[in-house]
Amino acid sequence: MVGRKLVERLARDGRLGAEPISQLSLVDVGAPDPPRDAPFAVDSTVADLAEPGVANGIVAARPDVVFHLAAVVSGEAEADLEKGYRVNLDATRLLLDAIRECDEGYCPRLISTSSIAVFGPPFPDVIDDDHLTTPATSYGTQKAMTELLLSDYSRRGFLDGVVIRLPTIAVRPGKPNLAASGFFSSIVREPLNGQDAVLPVSTDVRHWFASPRSAIGFLLHAATLDSGQLGDRRCLTMPGVSATVADEIEALRRVGGEEAVRRIRHEPDETIMRIVSGWPRAFDARRARDLGFQADADFDEIVRVYVEDELDRR
Amino acid sequence: MVGRKLVERLARDGRLGAEPISQLSLVDVGAPDPPRDAPFAVDSTVADLAEPGVANGIVAARPDVVFHLAAVVSGEAEADLEKGYRVNLDATRLLLDAIRECDEGYCPRLISTSSIAVFGPPFPDVIDDDHLTTPATSYGTQKAMTELLLSDYSRRGFLDGVVIRLPTIAVRPGKPNLAASGFFSSIVREPLNGQDAVLPVSTDVRHWFASPRSAIGFLLHAATLDSGQLGDRRCLTMPGVSATVADEIEALRRVGGEEAVRRIRHEPDETIMRIVSGWPRAFDARRARDLGFQADADFDEIVRVYVEDELDRR
Repeated sequence: MVGRKLVERLARDGRLGAEPISQLSLVDVGAPDPPRDAPFAVDSTVADLAEPGVANGIVAARPDVVFHLAAVVSGEAEADLEKGYRVNLDATRLLLDAIRECDEGYCPRLISTSSIAVFGPPFPDVIDDDHLTTPATSYGTQKAMTELLLSDYSRRGFLDGVVIRLPTIAVRPGKPNLAASGFFSSIVREPLNGQDAVLPVSTDVRHWFASPRSAIGFLLHAATLDSGQLGDRRCLTMPGVSATVADEIEALRRVGGEEAVRRIRHEPDETIMRIVSGWPRAFDARRARDLGFQADADFDEIVRVYVEDELDRR
Repeated sequence: MVGRKLVERLARDGRLGAEPISQLSLVDVGAPDPPRDAPFAVDSTVADLAEPGVANGIVAARPDVVFHLAAVVSGEAEADLEKGYRVNLDATRLLLDAIRECDEGYCPRLISTSSIAVFGPPFPDVIDDDHLTTPATSYGTQKAMTELLLSDYSRRGFLDGVVIRLPTIAVRPGKPNLAASGFFSSIVREPLNGQDAVLPVSTDVRHWFASPRSAIGFLLHAATLDSGQLGDRRCLTMPGVSATVADEIEALRRVGGEEAVRRIRHEPDETIMRIVSGWPRAFDARRARDLGFQADADFDEIVRVYVEDELDRR
């Protein structure tokens, strides 16, 4: 989803910061959708980055900027340990090594997405930029390991890496999925589409959010900022909105009215409540804010972005 | 050095905690020295743990306890990137995977050595147990990555891991080496052996030390403690002695007199001064102390341990 939206935005802008884009190469395990009406050449490759040699082929054209978004998500990385390490750690390492093995003058900006899952409980109410990474999942472990690797390779001058730790993205477009976090989006999305939604946790649950539009903004800013400002600390917790489920519901009410809110059915789910209780609630993402990364103002804006970018466009 | 001393101690004790040792298997890339007069069976294997399959052979006998000490040291890991990642990360991962792939009932205690090199500047005067890991070297990166992996595998129940972050070991026995930290040992060792030593930094440089005897004590305690006390935080910064070079020299004076101290020649070395200025100076290793890990009392004790364990035994 983030990759597709990033490509749409690049096609619309035709440039990255001040630089016009001359060529966009898409690589995915499934056939990537090329953007319509892109003002630059686009090619697509179906390939598995975790296969040796694939990454070398990708960097053979010496792209100036590489967005590395591929990941096995949290639930799947926990269910299938080997797949999680293969995709989230090994494939990233193969990409970084392919870049390292290029001629010395080649040092592309590489933007990689990480997650607040690199942090584990116990959490303070607000997590600052100096909080230690003690992930409570294999997914978070794999992300924390790649953060370290990318930082080391950047320090050694093989590439110019920036890692952005994304908040939970809401409101996600599309169908409900089975992720434990899915309800954060579906309790807004389904009612705004005239459908019922299930809320499995209590309304005082607090979590950390960014809209898909903000996430794309983070990626573009990470691609264009002066990385000299980062020093050797290449991993940035992104700013976001700390909101409770009650805040979400009030934001929904302001946009969709009582009728929308009545679509939410409270069905407590002990398993999801337990999982979510181990998640962070808020961050003080000072470094990223000082570097110019911008979050949504509040959950109202997150709902508005969903309406503008998903519903109004239909 | 740590491995050899550990084996000597195990042979002397004949037991690990309350449990008599029935079998000791040594594995190293060079022919390991079997201990003399061990009251248990000892076998030795020359093998490279980074070669696929080797780790599976090692765990085939289902050892109850595995000490994993092998490492490419800091300077070499910086000079030879591929070797560092291969030995410090890949070999450890192969060992952990070999254990994971065993039958479900097998969950050995695995003790792995890490380093204070997982921490990077800027440092507070005293680094506590919640300090984040931002290594400034490839060696520290590799160690921090294996810490994460071992923690994840322990959380998932594949093994019962304990990582101990060792202080700089002093006074190291043997010949001077080329490590940037070598002078911390040589300014004590060489004078006590009637030889001259070079001090490349100023006497107010402060660093974090443990004797070889303490290091072996850490390993034995890590092998026998109740790991239920660790929860999911499997990595422990070991206690140590925070001492300046001046403290070292005073401790040397008390043991070896003025004559020994006069053997130290001050020859400032800008490169070593710069490297050492990026090293931590002191830790508050509260978790490890509360778990019963015991450090030397002061640098006097560290010198005394060298005299007792190295000089008196000759």
